[in-house]
Amino acid sequence: MKTSTKIIIHACIAMFLIGGSTGAFAQQTINRNLFSAGHAGAFVDGLFDSYYPYKQLEKHGDFGLGAPDKLDGELMIFKGKFYQTEATGLTRQMPDTGKTPYAITCFFHADKVFRPHRALNKAELFKYLDSVLNNQNGLYAIHITGTFKMIRTRAFPPVSKPYVPLAAMMDKQRFFTFENIKGDMIGFKTPEFMAGSFISGYHFHFLSDNKDKGGHVVDVVTADIAIEVETLTSFTMDLPQTADFKNYNFKKINAADIKAVENGKK
Amino acid sequence: MKTSTKIIIHACIAMFLIGGSTGAFAQQTINRNLFSAGHAGAFVDGLFDSYYPYKQLEKHGDFGLGAPDKLDGELMIFKGKFYQTEATGLTRQMPDTGKTPYAITCFFHADKVFRPHRALNKAELFKYLDSVLNNQNGLYAIHITGTFKMIRTRAFPPVSKPYVPLAAMMDKQRFFTFENIKGDMIGFKTPEFMAGSFISGYHFHFLSDNKDKGGHVVDVVTADIAIEVETLTSFTMDLPQTADFKNYNFKKINAADIKAVENGKK
Repeated sequence: MKTSTKIIIHACIAMFLIGGSTGAFAQQTINRNLFSAGHAGAFVDGLFDSYYPYKQLEKHGDFGLGAPDKLDGELMIFKGKFYQTEATGLTRQMPDTGKTPYAITCFFHADKVFRPHRALNKAELFKYLDSVLNNQNGLYAIHITGTFKMIRTRAFPPVSKPYVPLAAMMDKQRFFTFENIKGDMIGFKTPEFMAGSFISGYHFHFLSDNKDKGGHVVDVVTADIAIEVETLTSFTMDLPQTADFKNYNFKKINAADIKAVENGKK
Repeated sequence: MKTSTKIIIHACIAMFLIGGSTGAFAQQTINRNLFSAGHAGAFVDGLFDSYYPYKQLEKHGDFGLGAPDKLDGELMIFKGKFYQTEATGLTRQMPDTGKTPYAITCFFHADKVFRPHRALNKAELFKYLDSVLNNQNGLYAIHITGTFKMIRTRAFPPVSKPYVPLAAMMDKQRFFTFENIKGDMIGFKTPEFMAGSFISGYHFHFLSDNKDKGGHVVDVVTADIAIEVETLTSFTMDLPQTADFKNYNFKKINAADIKAVENGKK
């Protein structure tokens, strides 16, 4: 090959790499956005039909939680994969070909890691988190990894129309208690001013190390854990372009009902 | 030039174009997101110190409205440029080197154009808009262009600390009435369920054709106008990482006060 030809090839490769690296650089800016497919209050009140593709959700995060179509159990998003815990207790990875009625997700990068070095029950854990998450109006992604003395989860069975609010079907929940189990609590702390459109306060789902147990966390006693925290600095809500959402009466949303559903009891 | 060299050059150009067009294709996906720098309720209640760079805001939209630093008048974002209307009435293009305490913006692409073909006062205009924007829970960007028989705007003078809520300084507003004027109304319709964190209902700022008159619209009578509407399908709120926001007591927000400020009267 002639020298001039080689130079042209090198110049062309350089052009191509520059084009590519601009994109890579843009992606390196840490994305601290909490993305919500759907509106928590409307979902809890009965908008259980899925509408947002998991493949689309992957573009907005690799860490999060939500619900499968028609409320068929609970959804965990962990390290970019989707897991479902059914009301039977069966937990397994889901394909990303379906859709969700409601999910929240972010790209997780730990800013800080806390190690409590003592067993904490749920109230103590939340109190501990309150003490280290010092921005009362802050939005946080929280990943708790390690061993749990006890963790109690719940999952709802699939629903059929006409749908009733979650708060009216608390007796349909199925509970699972696991002891001395390794795994990950995946969740968020959402400030009070976001209540209604998000589930305010703490909200965690669980996924065992073996990815065969999980669900929405209703109780916990930690053993040896590390708490990774990321400060999120914005949130996005995707508004369902569906007839159900268009016709939904937002005046029906009751903050106490959302809280009851999060806690698993009225 | 040898034929082989020419082929290599063409192949390289093709590689570059493919690399470039992937990016271009990604950008071609219509961005229907309403971006909010800051929280409307907290801003109206006195968080007037700027924090969000205009240069950053440009990445989230080319159409919108807001406030300059320390509430020094009103802000219009039109075709990617920033304009300020001071309380003196002076309206001019602003450099994009500063910051805003509060602004909302989107990339504007008209989905539909409506021509009322008759003069409408403010109440009639909003009623007309209600009749054509048929999703009660919909979020819309609205660009009204043409001639106005009358348009009345207001602008607040700059404030100094300690700040008081906008609702407590309505007597500081300056009003401007323009007759038979060409220009653009730049605004949004935000659904009721977003009230508090956004200014619900209709909210418009005005910018004259000559870019020398503007402000927050408090009254209008249209003449010959075209109404361009874009359906937005998501919104993002950037949460100020400032001491003021961290310490802000959201319980202070009063929906009636936000409405009064939008209307320009209690």
